[in-house]
Amino acid sequence: MQTLLHFDWIYNIGTVAFTVAGYLVGVRKRLDLLGIVIVALLTAIGGGIIRDVLLSRTPRVFLDATPIFLISTALLASLLLKLQTRNTGVLNRLFIVADSIGLVAFSLAGAQVGIDAHLNLFGVAFLGFVTAVGGGLVRDMMVNEVPFILHEDFYGTVALIVAVALYGARTAGVVGEGVGWALLVVGLLLRLIAHTREFRLPRVEE
Amino acid sequence: MQTLLHFDWIYNIGTVAFTVAGYLVGVRKRLDLLGIVIVALLTAIGGGIIRDVLLSRTPRVFLDATPIFLISTALLASLLLKLQTRNTGVLNRLFIVADSIGLVAFSLAGAQVGIDAHLNLFGVAFLGFVTAVGGGLVRDMMVNEVPFILHEDFYGTVALIVAVALYGARTAGVVGEGVGWALLVVGLLLRLIAHTREFRLPRVEE
Amino acid sequence: MQTLLHFDWIYNIGTVAFTVAGYLVGVRKRLDLLGIVIVALLTAIGGGIIRDVLLSRTPRVFLDATPIFLISTALLASLLLKLQTRNTGVLNRLFIVADSIGLVAFSLAGAQVGIDAHLNLFGVAFLGFVTAVGGGLVRDMMVNEVPFILHEDFYGTVALIVAVALYGARTAGVVGEGVGWALLVVGLLLRLIAHTREFRLPRVEE
Repeated sequence: MQTLLHFDWIYNIGTVAFTVAGYLVGVRKRLDLLGIVIVALLTAIGGGIIRDVLLSRTPRVFLDATPIFLISTALLASLLLKLQTRNTGVLNRLFIVADSIGLVAFSLAGAQVGIDAHLNLFGVAFLGFVTAVGGGLVRDMMVNEVPFILHEDFYGTVALIVAVALYGARTAGVVGEGVGWALLVVGLLLRLIAHTREFRLPRVEE
Repeated sequence: MQTLLHFDWIYNIGTVAFTVAGYLVGVRKRLDLLGIVIVALLTAIGGGIIRDVLLSRTPRVFLDATPIFLISTALLASLLLKLQTRNTGVLNRLFIVADSIGLVAFSLAGAQVGIDAHLNLFGVAFLGFVTAVGGGLVRDMMVNEVPFILHEDFYGTVALIVAVALYGARTAGVVGEGVGWALLVVGLLLRLIAHTREFRLPRVEE
Repeated sequence: MQTLLHFDWIYNIGTVAFTVAGYLVGVRKRLDLLGIVIVALLTAIGGGIIRDVLLSRTPRVFLDATPIFLISTALLASLLLKLQTRNTGVLNRLFIVADSIGLVAFSLAGAQVGIDAHLNLFGVAFLGFVTAVGGGLVRDMMVNEVPFILHEDFYGTVALIVAVALYGARTAGVVGEGVGWALLVVGLLLRLIAHTREFRLPRVEE
């Protein structure tokens, strides 16, 4: 029996946050309007498209355009509010929380797809990771930056941890929506604590 | 009923122009011979491969090698003629026209594939766009430049416009090859006028 | 009749060498631990994943995790031995040989998959090339370097030559495991001679 996670509004929070993250990168990189739209879109839906392509499925967003409306609205609001000029503490904190929700929720969604496709632990972790951070990664490659998840912050690691935990729970026979919610909360806390305390992964001396 | 666009020789013009564009980038970036071949190939067929992968199809060029002969010929001619040294007005204008034909024709071809696969408007626009500019985009990422479509010129926008227009026509029940030809001409004019008048998309102030 | 190449331990040598190559790039680029793991993984399995995606197959490593154990062991050993500090002649030569074995073996494996899928010569060469050098190529794009195969050394060319030769042999009706082994040896010698003599592909004058 497959147990799908049903937290649609959670995804929506993540989609909006990822769109805003992409928008801010596009503005900072001085792209034109099309460039900003592409970069924001890629951040929000790129990970899901890569996940679908890895499993030879038609990208879901090509069949169900719901996220596009959300992304368009978030983009338009960002433009009208000139979000790049509003660097206040409250807004920043709100963004971090929303972005972290997206990180954890998308990783769980990707891991779920991998579990349903009977992939091994590596495949499940890979899909969770790529769904959560794949869009941002390609975006960073595109605007010619070393993807931030490769050298900064305890971010991608959270995506891996929750994906692996979901796999572990399923393998142990622990199913049901409760698991998804529990991992969402744990992953979110982990990410926020890591962010506040500035966790860093060790570097290797050259 | 599916209505395929049959403008094979139009694609050929585009393929040659994209090959030449890739060749020039490779030479400018001081790649070696293999690097130039890869970059030219990628520019010419990369978009089509990405489109096919997105729809889980075997890349067409892996089954029908016709474009490869054309690309090889164009590459050889570019090398023998030392095209990078021939920066004359006539040649430049010829290149712009051929490249614009490729841009519009490939976008229409990609959009058509999306329509045939019953994708939504977003999917059709995405496929048109990616077929037309995906190869150049990956090429620019590879040689470590921010893809030019992200920050320069009214180029990718034309690909989006004709793809959306084709979708609109089909939805409105307007089918037949005439639509394809009409959009080809309109898109080409749009691109050439935009180029001549130096249309720019707005930038967003930081 | 399909003739598979059975040189599993040969692949293992290649997998270890590619992991080490990725590890060294990650350390040099000052990535954090997660970044190094990603970059090493990508170098070792990225080419195979791209090959599988191009043919709409579930990436093999998502179903059979054997390479992951090998990669993990190689990574752990690299970390514990601080491989980046051991720049001795013997170790360097060992690495070059192992990496060349990987290059040739992975190209043959990719070409084989293409032949089994009834692709044309271009498709077979593309798959061989991408299986062998695709991971390193994406890695270089990710850490913001122009992929070394585009501008340096007689490396990618060897992958192409053996893939094309395998296609030629099959087309000529020469099958059997012996062909694979012969091409492995020839390709390896070619690569090592090229490396020692510093073969370079010609550049094109700007």
